[in-house]
Amino acid sequence: MPRPLIIDSDVGVDDVTAILLASTHSDYSAHASAEALQLEAITVVDGNVSLPAAYQCAKTVMAVADVPESHVQVVAGAEGPLIPGLFKKVLWEGHGTDGLGGFTSRADEWNAFCQSHIPNHIPESLPENSTNRAAIELVTRAAANPGTLTLLALGPLTNVALAISLDKNFLKNLKSLVIMGGSIDARGNSSRVSEFNFHCDPEAAHIVFHAAGLLEECNVTLIPWETTLDHALPWTFVDYLLGRVDGGESAPSKLGAFLGGYVKFAEDAGRPLYEKASQEAARHEQYHTQLNGFLMCDIYAAVCVIDPSCILDSKKLHVHIELGGQYSRGMLAIDWNGWSGAKPNCNIVFKLDTDKIKGIFEKTFK
Amino acid sequence: MPRPLIIDSDVGVDDVTAILLASTHSDYSAHASAEALQLEAITVVDGNVSLPAAYQCAKTVMAVADVPESHVQVVAGAEGPLIPGLFKKVLWEGHGTDGLGGFTSRADEWNAFCQSHIPNHIPESLPENSTNRAAIELVTRAAANPGTLTLLALGPLTNVALAISLDKNFLKNLKSLVIMGGSIDARGNSSRVSEFNFHCDPEAAHIVFHAAGLLEECNVTLIPWETTLDHALPWTFVDYLLGRVDGGESAPSKLGAFLGGYVKFAEDAGRPLYEKASQEAARHEQYHTQLNGFLMCDIYAAVCVIDPSCILDSKKLHVHIELGGQYSRGMLAIDWNGWSGAKPNCNIVFKLDTDKIKGIFEKTFK
Amino acid sequence: MPRPLIIDSDVGVDDVTAILLASTHSDYSAHASAEALQLEAITVVDGNVSLPAAYQCAKTVMAVADVPESHVQVVAGAEGPLIPGLFKKVLWEGHGTDGLGGFTSRADEWNAFCQSHIPNHIPESLPENSTNRAAIELVTRAAANPGTLTLLALGPLTNVALAISLDKNFLKNLKSLVIMGGSIDARGNSSRVSEFNFHCDPEAAHIVFHAAGLLEECNVTLIPWETTLDHALPWTFVDYLLGRVDGGESAPSKLGAFLGGYVKFAEDAGRPLYEKASQEAARHEQYHTQLNGFLMCDIYAAVCVIDPSCILDSKKLHVHIELGGQYSRGMLAIDWNGWSGAKPNCNIVFKLDTDKIKGIFEKTFK
Amino acid sequence: MPRPLIIDSDVGVDDVTAILLASTHSDYSAHASAEALQLEAITVVDGNVSLPAAYQCAKTVMAVADVPESHVQVVAGAEGPLIPGLFKKVLWEGHGTDGLGGFTSRADEWNAFCQSHIPNHIPESLPENSTNRAAIELVTRAAANPGTLTLLALGPLTNVALAISLDKNFLKNLKSLVIMGGSIDARGNSSRVSEFNFHCDPEAAHIVFHAAGLLEECNVTLIPWETTLDHALPWTFVDYLLGRVDGGESAPSKLGAFLGGYVKFAEDAGRPLYEKASQEAARHEQYHTQLNGFLMCDIYAAVCVIDPSCILDSKKLHVHIELGGQYSRGMLAIDWNGWSGAKPNCNIVFKLDTDKIKGIFEKTFK
Ligand SMILES: [Ca+2]
Ligand SMILES: [Ca+2]
Ligand SMILES: [Ca+2]
Ligand SMILES: [Ca+2]
Repeated sequence: MPRPLIIDSDVGVDDVTAILLASTHSDYSAHASAEALQLEAITVVDGNVSLPAAYQCAKTVMAVADVPESHVQVVAGAEGPLIPGLFKKVLWEGHGTDGLGGFTSRADEWNAFCQSHIPNHIPESLPENSTNRAAIELVTRAAANPGTLTLLALGPLTNVALAISLDKNFLKNLKSLVIMGGSIDARGNSSRVSEFNFHCDPEAAHIVFHAAGLLEECNVTLIPWETTLDHALPWTFVDYLLGRVDGGESAPSKLGAFLGGYVKFAEDAGRPLYEKASQEAARHEQYHTQLNGFLMCDIYAAVCVIDPSCILDSKKLHVHIELGGQYSRGMLAIDWNGWSGAKPNCNIVFKLDTDKIKGIFEKTFK
Repeated sequence: MPRPLIIDSDVGVDDVTAILLASTHSDYSAHASAEALQLEAITVVDGNVSLPAAYQCAKTVMAVADVPESHVQVVAGAEGPLIPGLFKKVLWEGHGTDGLGGFTSRADEWNAFCQSHIPNHIPESLPENSTNRAAIELVTRAAANPGTLTLLALGPLTNVALAISLDKNFLKNLKSLVIMGGSIDARGNSSRVSEFNFHCDPEAAHIVFHAAGLLEECNVTLIPWETTLDHALPWTFVDYLLGRVDGGESAPSKLGAFLGGYVKFAEDAGRPLYEKASQEAARHEQYHTQLNGFLMCDIYAAVCVIDPSCILDSKKLHVHIELGGQYSRGMLAIDWNGWSGAKPNCNIVFKLDTDKIKGIFEKTFK
Repeated sequence: MPRPLIIDSDVGVDDVTAILLASTHSDYSAHASAEALQLEAITVVDGNVSLPAAYQCAKTVMAVADVPESHVQVVAGAEGPLIPGLFKKVLWEGHGTDGLGGFTSRADEWNAFCQSHIPNHIPESLPENSTNRAAIELVTRAAANPGTLTLLALGPLTNVALAISLDKNFLKNLKSLVIMGGSIDARGNSSRVSEFNFHCDPEAAHIVFHAAGLLEECNVTLIPWETTLDHALPWTFVDYLLGRVDGGESAPSKLGAFLGGYVKFAEDAGRPLYEKASQEAARHEQYHTQLNGFLMCDIYAAVCVIDPSCILDSKKLHVHIELGGQYSRGMLAIDWNGWSGAKPNCNIVFKLDTDKIKGIFEKTFK
Repeated sequence: MPRPLIIDSDVGVDDVTAILLASTHSDYSAHASAEALQLEAITVVDGNVSLPAAYQCAKTVMAVADVPESHVQVVAGAEGPLIPGLFKKVLWEGHGTDGLGGFTSRADEWNAFCQSHIPNHIPESLPENSTNRAAIELVTRAAANPGTLTLLALGPLTNVALAISLDKNFLKNLKSLVIMGGSIDARGNSSRVSEFNFHCDPEAAHIVFHAAGLLEECNVTLIPWETTLDHALPWTFVDYLLGRVDGGESAPSKLGAFLGGYVKFAEDAGRPLYEKASQEAARHEQYHTQLNGFLMCDIYAAVCVIDPSCILDSKKLHVHIELGGQYSRGMLAIDWNGWSGAKPNCNIVFKLDTDKIKGIFEKTFK
């Protein structure tokens, strides 16, 4: 039996990339091996974009990837953090309001793309009074075959936390939970010290890591913001993927063209800064400017699921999520030296195999 | 069609009393009037006692009251607050570990009671790996007939908050939510300034009142701790209910005998202090000692459901729940004068009709 | 030897009234009795008005009261709370920017008053780069004759806290510290639940009550906001003081005329609301509207110094000051029942003798 | 005129080392150059050891270094953090209770040292009821010659914050304030994420950096914990300093012998761990174990004063001090990218010249 996978996602541009990597590396054929991946559902959560936008974006991505609903169900989840009213999100423009970097709003480009690649596509909106089904879906699927399901969490952990609230055995029923989120060196991308996913819903993150600390054997892997920063890909790799060869462009693949469309805003905004910054030397410039190249954070968690041998260095540690404070809400407080005596509640990934990651991209987009 | 009612409860001794008042004032007959009450479920939550104890206690109470499961379903909910690990409860001994003031542990008394009144009773334990079904049950029942269901919440608001997290229309789908909880004058019974139900799960209370603030028409009624203190009944009324007449005891009714058993601890511990304190004069003595007599907090919320004309004085106000602080977690911060401009999110009850309350008790226990 | 007194004040209109009560009840004559009061300094602090305004106002008040600097020194203290940047004050307009309800800005009125009563008055500004001398002055005077000095604190406790920081024996060296501040029933006048003086500088209040808890014998008396509310004087008493008799006005005394000038704004704004509200009945209206009449909060602390027999009911209790929280910063958390086992760190005054208070006013203003 | 210097210190073993570096690099002679340093006072604060111990230790160090009181005055400051009762220090044993790593308690060793080097030494205790004079001393000395005094702060910033509270121009009156403290990568040595000096008194740190943000030209330099970690010296350098040459020990100098005595505990405890750890490879091992060798944190701030050319890399940034939170109190929240628009309030030092540091050590101890 292949490895079943659910992606819980707030469906921004990096989520889209991660979803495409996972779905193109899935094998739904009858003779799929035990090692084969099978993305079987996407549970959607508010975060990079609103819940309705995230839902519609996930549906569009599945249409582009030509994955039928019988293979991958899209399920709507939470419309905001567990505890409402505490946090005013500032959204990164790079996601657009469509989760596709504004691709669907650039009418000419989008229509041209659709006509070439998904001519019969009709956008699917989330029904207005739909309830939050994600947590119930997660609980049900995890309990159906305990110990087999992998959950890849790429957004605020609201849905995952609700699943734990509904079933104290939820986490134990998973084979593995792989999370993109959190800052380990107090280098934030949402507040000064907090990473976006955890900053959006710190209580949800707390519920997840609290539950992880109660497991006999911890099955939670964390890819933190700083690790993604350290592994940004060069923009020239994007040139290669998109067929921007010397003296002209070779036509990219369908998914390549899609990628080119939804990362356009990010590239236009970030690449000039990156090229300026990458020539500077000092630690605080290189490390702190966060202009490290083509950075699709969520894909670093996806590759750990697609090919666990991508992980070159990691350590099991105990983390707390800061829930209070004037500046630190959502930050990780890590027991680096084990002084607290608390059992590790996650495996933090520090180093990844960039060559393997490039290979995974090539298979999907080239 | 009669008024359907669900009680969400942490099933301590005052909850038990409130449940008995509500079930004995329910009319399940075919010709029940539109005004008639019909308790149709009890959703159970961790609080005064553990979830398994609360579940078993609710089942026992239904057995004593001779209410079949076809009338009242008992549904297990949350095993602890929404955000775990933040709060160490100190439990009041008056509830016992059985929610019946230790009645079931006083073997001779309990066996005698059972033999007389529920000879075939077999305690029903909560199955070990049962999941939290309360929120899903609440959401489903409220959505089935929007605008008809009354929810009486007598414990930490965990189940209610989860229902809101699963369905943003949950509160709107209720006819009315009546809550016992919160302190309005910073007079706590759990911390210096916080009432037990809200102190146990402040985030849950916040979720409920936040949702209430979004309703076009607020349907939330709050009976705070101080109001219950102000309406404690005299211990001599208990004497009357239990038939402790001059020169001997007349046999109490079945429910009277049950009451006598489960309030014994509270009476033994509190009555001597009350009788000493009630003779003292100063405001801080009378008001702050919290030794005001026979005080079953949750019943003051129940009587507001059974007979809304019990409410003699109330005001619609906006409340915040303090989630932080060193001392104030779970306290209400009330906009008494409307300075904030925030729309009221609850109707706070200040004054109740003690005579009517006594009448309701008589019908149930005498 | 008479009783030496220092008033630490943020010199708003109620402070001015309190200062006038204290200075007109001081006896600087050679044959002053041991019971006689001798106001000997005013240390000024930022609060109701800015520090420079408070300083100038105190100087003006002493000029109006005809008290020479050899009797009462005015010393500038803190320009803001101990911990800067945490709190944005919202100032009550009733104080004006001059601490005199805008009296000095109503040029015609003010000039007329000055011409009649203080023809040679020249306003004294605080020198620009003056340092904070209040704490050092307090420490020095208290240590000079340990156990004799009374300190009446009518503003944020910044200066008092700094004195404790400079000399751990400061509080012990005082005979008595009488404070106006804090809310005991979570009824705020600055935030929903916090009183202005403590809300302005909660850390300072914490330092003071922490030090008080270390004393062998606690010498701190607290007159909280709710107690002042309970003892508001009728506006008709102001009419009487100011000689507004039927069919005309009899000329008020100099201090009466001064009072009339600096409470004009408060009277114009508050009296109509009061007269409307005082006819309404319900508890929340009477108690919570805070429109209880002529309310000069600080004077209730002053009368406790001038004539301690004004105190009719008080209780020694342990209080914490909430320093955190979203809503509760600056609130008192009181151990009403002694559950914490912490030694009382203040004597909270609940009830005062209104007749005696009126007598004190008459002596000063009539 | 030479450069006057005050060291504010909690006088643990690293402070002692820093004080010795500064005093042996001071020139009190009549012909001292304008570049010459003149340590002129040590203000003492509670931190690594109690205030009385810190006071006595500073006096002993001056005796060992043969510096008369006419050159360096020792002034007692705060006995604890600005806001008492919030923090329970856990003290590192390496300081001993004497600030000298327990040297003075190892009677034989200490007596032998004294006999050889300070035969007439009589320990000087802090008088019992002495008040806190440090802040007043700092304010007075800074105001005497504005723009000339350097302050080197090596402990909790309590004294410095009080100086600012007493004189808003204090910081501006300094030439330079050089601080050892704070964590920039959320790598704590006191809590999981907080450095000891800032964790002991976060409000004091906040007051200092808040004041620094108001300066036209910021004169505050910060040497954070992580920077000291990055520049730990090899234990073999200690061998060299102490004359532990192959085949025996050559007699160390007086200060060398003193150093050997007060770092003995630290060396015995830390060196074996270091030698084990230094052979391991991974980032989290090297960086996070904090076993980087001979680590006397405070000296990295001292060398920046003694020879500013030791600073090889630094950046002006805006920092906040976290005052709240469950885990993050005392942590820095740094605006690495200038997103907040707040003006830098300190110059953070990242890289130092280890060779120059060794040279400074040699001059003092060899
Ligand atoms: Ca995402
Ligand atoms: Ca209850
Ligand atoms: Ca005042
Ligand atoms: Ca130090």
